[in-house]
Amino acid sequence: MIIDFEQTAEFLKNCRDTVIITHQSPDGDCIGAGFALRDILDTLGIRSKVICGDTFPERYSFITDVQDGAEDFEPQSVISVDVADKKLMGGYESVYGNKVGLCIDHHVSNTGYARKTLLNPDASAACEVIYELAVYMGVKMSRHCAECLYTGIITDSGCFRYSCTGWRTHEIAGEMMKNYPDIDFALINRKMFEEKSIERVRLECGAVSGMESFFDGKLNILTVTKEELHKDGVKPDDVEGLAPMSVQTEGSEVGILIKERDNGSYKCSFRSAYSVNVAEICAKFGGGGHEKAAGCTLKGNLDEVKTRLVGAVGEALGL
Amino acid sequence: MIIDFEQTAEFLKNCRDTVIITHQSPDGDCIGAGFALRDILDTLGIRSKVICGDTFPERYSFITDVQDGAEDFEPQSVISVDVADKKLMGGYESVYGNKVGLCIDHHVSNTGYARKTLLNPDASAACEVIYELAVYMGVKMSRHCAECLYTGIITDSGCFRYSCTGWRTHEIAGEMMKNYPDIDFALINRKMFEEKSIERVRLECGAVSGMESFFDGKLNILTVTKEELHKDGVKPDDVEGLAPMSVQTEGSEVGILIKERDNGSYKCSFRSAYSVNVAEICAKFGGGGHEKAAGCTLKGNLDEVKTRLVGAVGEALGL
Repeated sequence: MIIDFEQTAEFLKNCRDTVIITHQSPDGDCIGAGFALRDILDTLGIRSKVICGDTFPERYSFITDVQDGAEDFEPQSVISVDVADKKLMGGYESVYGNKVGLCIDHHVSNTGYARKTLLNPDASAACEVIYELAVYMGVKMSRHCAECLYTGIITDSGCFRYSCTGWRTHEIAGEMMKNYPDIDFALINRKMFEEKSIERVRLECGAVSGMESFFDGKLNILTVTKEELHKDGVKPDDVEGLAPMSVQTEGSEVGILIKERDNGSYKCSFRSAYSVNVAEICAKFGGGGHEKAAGCTLKGNLDEVKTRLVGAVGEALGL
Repeated sequence: MIIDFEQTAEFLKNCRDTVIITHQSPDGDCIGAGFALRDILDTLGIRSKVICGDTFPERYSFITDVQDGAEDFEPQSVISVDVADKKLMGGYESVYGNKVGLCIDHHVSNTGYARKTLLNPDASAACEVIYELAVYMGVKMSRHCAECLYTGIITDSGCFRYSCTGWRTHEIAGEMMKNYPDIDFALINRKMFEEKSIERVRLECGAVSGMESFFDGKLNILTVTKEELHKDGVKPDDVEGLAPMSVQTEGSEVGILIKERDNGSYKCSFRSAYSVNVAEICAKFGGGGHEKAAGCTLKGNLDEVKTRLVGAVGEALGL
């Protein structure tokens, strides 16, 4: 059941000992949303903890630190944030998948697995929904809560670059800067967008220097082999977010990042710069996703895989 | 003389056949400010043209195209935008340096060379000052004018990432998105921040793969040789903005980009991630700049140059 702010506020006030679940492969938005909600519940006098099927990456420690050493408890209420499908809970699906009382989300693809869902598909981030909820409820946000929400908004909107950014996204960022002049917003941006591990920098360079271009540069393919992924010091986190680099060159329409998996299959992440619908291309290979960002997994040897991908993109480009 | 919005509006209304000067090595802010002001003057029925000591880069053609084929005229009024010092006019300094009636700027270092100056050092961009001016004057901004102003704001604020971004910067971006729903803001962002020439991508990769680190990674040095700068297809524009890549690794405090010049000297661009004042370091070598971004030029052979730079940074780091 889709509910509104009033019903959500009512739900939250009646929570106790609450577990807040984020999705696996956690990003800035689900982590920010989870910990912001934890702060809001704390203000309401309700104990809660944020859980995730995977470990929270170190770079979000300024958000997740508050929970270190917190006492454990048996949950009585279950809330999910930024989780469009219970499958995305990973290891927690079997435990909590059918017990979610409230889901707060912004994905239009939300499957409605929770008993109640607060959904705004026009919001840039789940954190934008939670900000509006806190304003509606008149909850005084802590500085930490504002840092969580700002982090979720900038990571999901690509720092206000992506088309999910709305005028209200900017207005909210402006309100936060006005109300929390002590927050070092530029530092959060540096941590999220500029700082990379040296292994990540090397991985980017390796992938980009081996970039292959087709159709006069309309298609670029980047490849990361399992040898590169297993180099000393490379963490799973280092490999995230490489796909957009495949479509950064002028004149490119489609970019593909091919990651070799240990089982010999290839995970192919597609990006579209403009009008090509890459979800449709990936669907032909049993994958899916969004119009401008989609993926599929192919088997075979690398050359064969590339030939099939190039053929499918050529067709989509009408070439 | 520093003047306010009222006096500036009065000045503009009395202009005729106006030349608008930007600084050399033009960037998104001076180009956006120049062409936005051209649009505003046009609305007031005043003919104007934007000029620059250098050619406007191709990527800004969606801004500069409006002037293609416009008729020429003998200027009666002279306005500079985003030009902190008349020296920055390049080839136009000798013609207009002492004839600027109005300067609109946001640099705290503005030398006051113009007869009248509208200055807001708290604004993220000259375009932010011009937006406020247009609102004050009640001028209806064209869609093109809003695109110019948005471009200047995002390029000077690093897409709202840098510390010059204020709450009002976000509020203005929100107002523009609300008032101009037809503008493809995400496309402007793609053009400014994602799309690169293939030569630029290769140059980045070459510089980063040869990165040298010192003091446990607190200092990184990137080097671009004149051979790399003269490779087929590399344009001057491709080399701009490489310096921030020197300070992108976790744990880095200072980054230096060394560019070899044709005359055998080395242009050294410093960036500071946190607290090291790189303007002070550059001053020791006869250079200068801002606390977090500064530069100097050194002579000698490359190894000597690096040794001197590493020594000076080590001293600044107290190592």
